[in-house]
Amino acid sequence: MKKQLLSMVLVLMGGLCMAADDGVWMWYPGEYGIWRGNALQFERLQWGAELPPFWPSYGFYPVVEFSAQFDLAEAERVEMTADGGFTVNVNGRDCVAPLGRVDVPKGRVTIKVKVGNNLRPPALLVKGKTVKSGEAWKVGWYPDDPAALPVEFDRAFADAGNKPGDWKLRREPAVPVQIRKLDGGALLADFGRETYGYLVLTDIKGEGAVKIIYAESEKEALDEAPARPQDCMEFVSLGAKDAPKCVWKKGRGFRYVFLRPFEGNLSIGGIAMERELPRASRRGAFRCNDERVNAIWDVAADTLELTCREVFIEGVKRDHWVWSGDAVQSFLMNYYLSGDYEGCRDTLWCVRGKDPVVKHLNGIMDYSFLWFDAVATYVLYSGDQRFLQQAKPRMDSLMRWCQSRLDAKGRPVNQPGDWIFIDWAPEALHNAGGVCAFEMMVYARALETMVMTEPPEQNFTLASVAQKVKSEVKTLFWSEENGCLMHLFKNDGTLDPQVTRYPNIFGLKWGYFNDSERERVLKGVMFNDKVMKIQTPYMRFYELEALCALGMQKQVLGEIRDYWGGMLDLGATSFWELYNPAESGDQHYAMYGRPYGKSLCHAWGASPIYLLGRYFLGVEPTEPGFAAYTVKPVLGGLEWMTGKVPTPTGDIEVTVKDGAVTVKGNGGKGKLVWNGKSVPIPVNETVMVE
Amino acid sequence: MKKQLLSMVLVLMGGLCMAADDGVWMWYPGEYGIWRGNALQFERLQWGAELPPFWPSYGFYPVVEFSAQFDLAEAERVEMTADGGFTVNVNGRDCVAPLGRVDVPKGRVTIKVKVGNNLRPPALLVKGKTVKSGEAWKVGWYPDDPAALPVEFDRAFADAGNKPGDWKLRREPAVPVQIRKLDGGALLADFGRETYGYLVLTDIKGEGAVKIIYAESEKEALDEAPARPQDCMEFVSLGAKDAPKCVWKKGRGFRYVFLRPFEGNLSIGGIAMERELPRASRRGAFRCNDERVNAIWDVAADTLELTCREVFIEGVKRDHWVWSGDAVQSFLMNYYLSGDYEGCRDTLWCVRGKDPVVKHLNGIMDYSFLWFDAVATYVLYSGDQRFLQQAKPRMDSLMRWCQSRLDAKGRPVNQPGDWIFIDWAPEALHNAGGVCAFEMMVYARALETMVMTEPPEQNFTLASVAQKVKSEVKTLFWSEENGCLMHLFKNDGTLDPQVTRYPNIFGLKWGYFNDSERERVLKGVMFNDKVMKIQTPYMRFYELEALCALGMQKQVLGEIRDYWGGMLDLGATSFWELYNPAESGDQHYAMYGRPYGKSLCHAWGASPIYLLGRYFLGVEPTEPGFAAYTVKPVLGGLEWMTGKVPTPTGDIEVTVKDGAVTVKGNGGKGKLVWNGKSVPIPVNETVMVE
Repeated sequence: MKKQLLSMVLVLMGGLCMAADDGVWMWYPGEYGIWRGNALQFERLQWGAELPPFWPSYGFYPVVEFSAQFDLAEAERVEMTADGGFTVNVNGRDCVAPLGRVDVPKGRVTIKVKVGNNLRPPALLVKGKTVKSGEAWKVGWYPDDPAALPVEFDRAFADAGNKPGDWKLRREPAVPVQIRKLDGGALLADFGRETYGYLVLTDIKGEGAVKIIYAESEKEALDEAPARPQDCMEFVSLGAKDAPKCVWKKGRGFRYVFLRPFEGNLSIGGIAMERELPRASRRGAFRCNDERVNAIWDVAADTLELTCREVFIEGVKRDHWVWSGDAVQSFLMNYYLSGDYEGCRDTLWCVRGKDPVVKHLNGIMDYSFLWFDAVATYVLYSGDQRFLQQAKPRMDSLMRWCQSRLDAKGRPVNQPGDWIFIDWAPEALHNAGGVCAFEMMVYARALETMVMTEPPEQNFTLASVAQKVKSEVKTLFWSEENGCLMHLFKNDGTLDPQVTRYPNIFGLKWGYFNDSERERVLKGVMFNDKVMKIQTPYMRFYELEALCALGMQKQVLGEIRDYWGGMLDLGATSFWELYNPAESGDQHYAMYGRPYGKSLCHAWGASPIYLLGRYFLGVEPTEPGFAAYTVKPVLGGLEWMTGKVPTPTGDIEVTVKDGAVTVKGNGGKGKLVWNGKSVPIPVNETVMVE
Repeated sequence: MKKQLLSMVLVLMGGLCMAADDGVWMWYPGEYGIWRGNALQFERLQWGAELPPFWPSYGFYPVVEFSAQFDLAEAERVEMTADGGFTVNVNGRDCVAPLGRVDVPKGRVTIKVKVGNNLRPPALLVKGKTVKSGEAWKVGWYPDDPAALPVEFDRAFADAGNKPGDWKLRREPAVPVQIRKLDGGALLADFGRETYGYLVLTDIKGEGAVKIIYAESEKEALDEAPARPQDCMEFVSLGAKDAPKCVWKKGRGFRYVFLRPFEGNLSIGGIAMERELPRASRRGAFRCNDERVNAIWDVAADTLELTCREVFIEGVKRDHWVWSGDAVQSFLMNYYLSGDYEGCRDTLWCVRGKDPVVKHLNGIMDYSFLWFDAVATYVLYSGDQRFLQQAKPRMDSLMRWCQSRLDAKGRPVNQPGDWIFIDWAPEALHNAGGVCAFEMMVYARALETMVMTEPPEQNFTLASVAQKVKSEVKTLFWSEENGCLMHLFKNDGTLDPQVTRYPNIFGLKWGYFNDSERERVLKGVMFNDKVMKIQTPYMRFYELEALCALGMQKQVLGEIRDYWGGMLDLGATSFWELYNPAESGDQHYAMYGRPYGKSLCHAWGASPIYLLGRYFLGVEPTEPGFAAYTVKPVLGGLEWMTGKVPTPTGDIEVTVKDGAVTVKGNGGKGKLVWNGKSVPIPVNETVMVE
């Protein structure tokens, strides 16, 4: 894996998703991801209140300076538009620029544009023949910032009238499949399936207040006095100013809406919504002979699209927040569903935030380290090498902060205020003191990602630290007796006897084992029912991925059918935060000691998207941005399958049927591996192998 | 002075201006000063563009957490209102708080409220019998911030409907005294005197664009093609959407408005404005037998009020920015005109900004140090001791940054990128390399201010460093031969032979001289016409202050009559950035090599307000917030005078007439010194001494 990461630094790609030929809006890297992410996260409802994240949230830089140099054969007039007030400086002199028109002289010119905006991140659009916004520009967070970064942009924002600060996800009107009038003016609306959008109350009369419950089950919607309050309640004053119809300004996730007026003489006649559409179009596809698997893919796709909003949130009803470890998985699924690289990028910035770093990302130690993993896969799938330059200062400062909390031996230990989250496994185990194998492994992975940001001749130290940490994982945690990596190295210098799947799953994923060790791990842990089972789709993602990587698609397909199919059997219209087949009835709604605490539309529930695209269709980038890639399909017991995988240079289409594979390539250099053969896939053309 | 500063730490005042008995809006210290200051500063016009400051601008913290502890004899219902979404936590548990109503149990309670707002600084209002917003609360820039600070508030914001984020200065409609129609649809409006507000164009027809010149002289307004562009031009597209009347969203300063439509078929029939009223009411007053002095006081008051907007800016037409050194003087004048302590506080935060510190304040070394001086006088006049706690982290980080740039001997030297601004004196002198006496003196003063933030037993180091720097000023710069402090200690270890007034003025102000030294300085520098004269009102402020402090009010009165009276004789309706009696005609408008580059309404032009209040009426606080004060009037050649000085505990009224002084005291402990007598001034009562 290290070699692959290193190669990313060496490969220079066109970066198709970053093309900006005619001038596009540009801004300081990360500003919109953080700003939009704040807005979305601050809308989280809890118990009738809005709950912003408990980790630090960061604001935007209100004045930035864009700068670039150009060689002009002739003088030209350039049109500039800014989101904010702005002043243009050409060759060291501020210019008169009536209505944003700047006359730029011929020859070598240095252009600097200061933009100030107190309400949202400043942005700039430059349109001229030679002088235009795009890759040539740098931007500093203050004028003459010596650490100016390459500007960030998004090809979707190319018109002067389409400012990135005005961007909103599209909406369409929607009505419930059923509205029930209940006693005392209460109403219950069922929208038929999990959805996300803006509540619309109609026929509002009188004045007063209303209590609203957003719910994912009818039981939750109708439980007005639960043992503990529902997560997603809202109390709103309404009156003449809202009559006859009121449209919410903030988005909510739900299937059911219950409302009951209280105080005054308020009455409400109807409920509707403006449904917010997914952030990106669905480019990936999967169909096979097994309709249960197809249904699972469809609901997984719905689930992921619901959680991929301005940034990628954990769940739509309860949890509007962005979690680093969850985002790692949302990204991987997204690469196989919509290839929304800008969404990933915005999410990376949102979860990283800014400096100073004062807490682990999301307060969780492994989530700090997993952010680096998300960066690595983002660059691999998107080919966005600029991101590494843009993010390097924040990668450096986060890593410095993490390293300031290592113990004297350079190991990541639980410091006061840190949270160690290795699935919902018994926390007592992680918090007993000592070092968790899993934490050392994600730390090593983070170091490997850091290696990507430096030219090879400069990264010797980082690379050797990464190698040292990896070696130490084996030295400290490998138990010859148990034939696996143990979970915890205790402060007393001994290994805790408990065996868990976690370090062994990641040992398989990140190549920690030789052949005989791998066999022992499979037998002693992965296929050993005595070892505590993985219950959340979160860790199940990695477990099933590890099995797929070992060619056990058949077993995995069975698991997908049982586990995700089990949720479908219970009527799920989106996949859940956790599913325990042993539970029944209302038990399925409960979590965190709350009767309706479980999220029933949870991003990490959508992993079949990834597993089927990556390990069944078998499409894998081998160079950043799919400049090179492999297609190595595995039917895993299916009779036939067909599907599409989005990439920055076009979709890759794979069909396996009647013992033959047909692949239509994208803009990169592909290799089809099938039936013992390895065949090149021509650029944008179709190849078939029997 | 050090003793006085130290005493501030020890004196505990009620802090009347901070009273918050019924619950007031509260926020993270400095957030609104910075946010409102940004908005105002970003509106600066230059050459048809909006020019944000060239130093770093900082955003706001989008999520803050308020916390407090209370002892409740009985449970109570508390009403909370936030600017932003919010969640209330009582004794470690998040609560259900329908419509902001929180039921707080009796006993000892810890309340935490997280507020998130992505659009403007979060704020919170708490109204209960016991539990209410105010001094009891701390606020962190993120949840559980261990460095939470005492909240900031302003008694003007006490109602739920009056959010600090909605606050705007009041306006009233105003029309020009004359409008002239010129060729080609151009118009010239004269508002009769310097003003500030929002342009209103009327009878707009057609579509097109208009060029607008905001001017302080008719000459500037009508000069459509000057040698260099006017500072305050604006180019605006107008059309059907603006017809028939368009009100500007951004404030401009001007006396004249010229406009000329260009492009399309646009025509504009009339010009008016919404005049923005002064930030604070005029509490101070001064009248005497000399009508020229009265007229000077009136125009100085107008000038200061025009520049005291949301924060205190340098000038209203050209320069919408906030400058630290200028603010020092605006504050001192303000203390004698309106006692707008919140305005001073907002300005302090605005000019300091946040961390990281990457440049000197305003880019100017001495302006970093003078900010500390502004803090010291702010605490002395306002009595706002909380500010010291609130600002301490930013005082520390700014001082650390400044100290990181000292030379090996601990002296402030000109580092690359720094600007040394000692008036508009020959810059070659400051930039020759070496150490300027003035810079060491303001550094020492800054250290003395830092001493205020620590309990006496902890500030030994700071105090001794301050003392060491002061001693070194004498050692390095005192010339026995010249009988004064020299300007520059050069890198070759010798003193530059040039004598300037600057270090000697501040030597007098800050007590650097013994009696015989002072005599030599007065004779050899202050009253020596061969020493380069002070030309700007900026340094003239300190020069005249120094003379007043030595009892030379009579000479100073003559200077006021000549210098400020000279501007009145030229028709000034506000005082200028610079006045040179030797110039004539259009020369008065020029500065910075630009024909209309001079600001004709400049805060530092208003210093007679301070000189007359402080050294003629003779009112001086001796303990923070005027808890103790002295009144020591000096007629300085006037026959009689009467006036008022605002303080946090009421106005102090002073009348000197027929050899007797009458003083009405405020809420503090006053002392009247007159005619060799020293008499106590009873609280809020009147005393007369002959």
